[in-house]
Amino acid sequence: MSMSEELKQLRAQVDEINVELLNLLSRRAELTKQIGDVKTAQGVNKFDPVRERDMLDTIVSSNPGPFDNDTMRHLFKQIFKASLDLQQQDHQKALLV
Amino acid sequence: MSMSEELKQLRAQVDEINVELLNLLSRRAELTKQIGDVKTAQGVNKFDPVRERDMLDTIVSSNPGPFDNDTMRHLFKQIFKASLDLQQQDHQKALLV
Repeated sequence: MSMSEELKQLRAQVDEINVELLNLLSRRAELTKQIGDVKTAQGVNKFDPVRERDMLDTIVSSNPGPFDNDTMRHLFKQIFKASLDLQQQDHQKALLV
Repeated sequence: MSMSEELKQLRAQVDEINVELLNLLSRRAELTKQIGDVKTAQGVNKFDPVRERDMLDTIVSSNPGPFDNDTMRHLFKQIFKASLDLQQQDHQKALLV
């Protein structure tokens, strides 16, 4: 297999994973929106640092690499932040209705 | 179903997705390491802004929401950056051998 053929095949696999990541991130965002709604109904704070820390601990405890734990933490923190922003936008919209 | 039961079930689904994301991100990182090796052998630059832009365009063109396109772009850019850092660490290690 030529080098550029190899590169092409590897890239095709990355493209497939991108689609899977897109779909998982979107499903996760839907779930966190629902969680935001439940929390609004309960009148509890949406930011829950203990829950976030627990999720991060669970994630890095089964991190197979090659990303190191700090990198994986960073990526998931970005996802958590985006989810919280989404919950807060939703809440803002609800207040404006 | 009580509110906290509902919250528990939603969180369990988020936990499952976290594991799937962890595994996909790790598989993706492995692939980009291999891509880095091929590029090193070819003597080409690892940072490829055209490829990154193409991937981002493809991703947002099928973004189902609820994250908006800017958020999705941001999350994927973080993944790309982490992958490039990994390729560069690898290259650095190879130079030190």
